[in-house]
Amino acid sequence: MLEGISSLIIDLDGVVWLEGKPIKGAAEALRALEERGKRLAFLTNNSVVSRRDCIRRLKKMGIRTERVITSSYGAALWLKREGRARVYAIGERGLREELKLAGHELVGEREAERATHVVVGLDRRLNYQKLAAGMRAILAGAKFIATNRDCSFPTEGGLLPGAGAVVSFLEVAASKPPDVVIGKPEPFLLELALKELHSRPGETALIGDRMDTDVAAGKRMGLMTVLVLTGVSREPRGRQRPDLVVKNLSDLL
Amino acid sequence: MLEGISSLIIDLDGVVWLEGKPIKGAAEALRALEERGKRLAFLTNNSVVSRRDCIRRLKKMGIRTERVITSSYGAALWLKREGRARVYAIGERGLREELKLAGHELVGEREAERATHVVVGLDRRLNYQKLAAGMRAILAGAKFIATNRDCSFPTEGGLLPGAGAVVSFLEVAASKPPDVVIGKPEPFLLELALKELHSRPGETALIGDRMDTDVAAGKRMGLMTVLVLTGVSREPRGRQRPDLVVKNLSDLL
Repeated sequence: MLEGISSLIIDLDGVVWLEGKPIKGAAEALRALEERGKRLAFLTNNSVVSRRDCIRRLKKMGIRTERVITSSYGAALWLKREGRARVYAIGERGLREELKLAGHELVGEREAERATHVVVGLDRRLNYQKLAAGMRAILAGAKFIATNRDCSFPTEGGLLPGAGAVVSFLEVAASKPPDVVIGKPEPFLLELALKELHSRPGETALIGDRMDTDVAAGKRMGLMTVLVLTGVSREPRGRQRPDLVVKNLSDLL
Repeated sequence: MLEGISSLIIDLDGVVWLEGKPIKGAAEALRALEERGKRLAFLTNNSVVSRRDCIRRLKKMGIRTERVITSSYGAALWLKREGRARVYAIGERGLREELKLAGHELVGEREAERATHVVVGLDRRLNYQKLAAGMRAILAGAKFIATNRDCSFPTEGGLLPGAGAVVSFLEVAASKPPDVVIGKPEPFLLELALKELHSRPGETALIGDRMDTDVAAGKRMGLMTVLVLTGVSREPRGRQRPDLVVKNLSDLL
C-alpha cells in the first residue's frame, strides 16, 4: 500500500491515541511499519500537550522517537527566526513550556503591551481579561501568531471550543488576521517534519484523521495522503479525496 | 439643516454620552431639537446597559422619553415572536434584565443544552466554560442570536473587545453563523425605532458616531444619515459618506 514511500508523518489525536488513551492496535502497527524500514515522525495541531509529554507517551507504547512536532513547539521555533521574542501567550502549560525551552521571555497580562508577539493556543482557563490583554498587545504592534485554527476538539462529553475560536475572537477584536498560522493545513509544521525526516514530499505520506487539516495540508504540499477513520472524519464524499482511506493504522500493513 | 426631517434616531455612546458622562452641549442641543418639533428616539448597540438605566440617565439630562432601544431590549422583543423562549445568555445584567422583563426563561451553564435560544452580548466576565456551554447549546439545536457584532468599544484605558468578538468565537466553535444579528448595521433596531416614532425612513435622520454601524444602517434603510465626530469615527474619506457631518450635536442647530 505504501510503495515508494520511505517516510510517514503521523497525526496523534484520533490516529495514535484518543483523549490520551492509545487506539487499539496502533502501537503494534507503528512498530511493524518501522520494522519494514519506514521512518516515522509525529505531528499534532494540539497546542496543549508538550512535546516531552508526547515523546513519553509514545515511549510507553514502545515507540522510541524524538521526531515529535506540536503546534506549540512549531510556534516556539518559528519565533526563533525573529530573534529572542517577548511573548504574551494565551494557552496552557504545554505552550508556555515550549516557549521557555526555546529561550523566549514570557510576559504577564499586565505587561502585555510590552510584548513583541502574541501567541495563541487553546486555553481552557480563558477569560475576558486574557483576551483583552491579547487584543491590546496586538493593537500596540505585537505580531499575532496562531498555533492552529482548529474550531473544536472531541472529548467524551462532546465537542469543546478549539484554539481557532480563540484566534477568531482576537482577529475580530483587534481587526487584524494572524500574521502566521503554525498548524495544519498551513505548511509550516509539515516543512519541519520533512526536514527532520530528511525526506522529500514525493516519498512521504501524511496519515491523519481529519480532512480539513491533515488531508488538506498533505495535498497542498504534494504528499501522499492517508485518512484513518479512528478519529474525527468519516469516509469522505466531497471532491477532495485522500489517496488512501483505511479503518485504522493496522489496515496499513 | 434638517429640512423635511420630523424624527431623529440618535445613537447614545459617543453621541449623547461617553463612558456614561454626558457630552458637553448634548443635553441642550437635544432639548432645542425637541422644541423645534423633532420627535426623538434613542438607539444603541450597547448590550450591557438596560433600557431603564438609559431612560434614567437621559432624564437626568433633562430629556424625558420612553423611546429608548438597546440591542438587548431588541433581542428580547425579537424572541417574543418565537413565543416564550428558554434562553442561555452570555452577557451582563442589562441583557438578563431585558430577557426577564420580556418573560423569557433563563437557563444556567449546566442546563445550556436545554435552551431554545443562545443570546450573545458583551460579557466582561466571559470565560471558557460560558463559551463552551453556548457552543454546546447551539450544536444541540438552539437558535443563535447576536445582540450586535461591534468588534470593540472605547474606554479611557483604550479599546476593549466587543460583543462581535464573542459572537465570532461561537460562530467558529459551533461552525454556524448567528441566525440573527439584532444591532446596527442590521435593520431590526431601526425598524423598531421607526415604529415607535410612527415615522417613515424619508422623514427620519439617523445620528451616530460610527460609519460602520450607524451610517451603514441608516443608508441601508433609506434614512438621512448624520455623522457626529464626538465618538469613534473621524471625518470620513472612503466612498460611503453620510449626508451630513457635524462636530457635535450642537452643530445641528
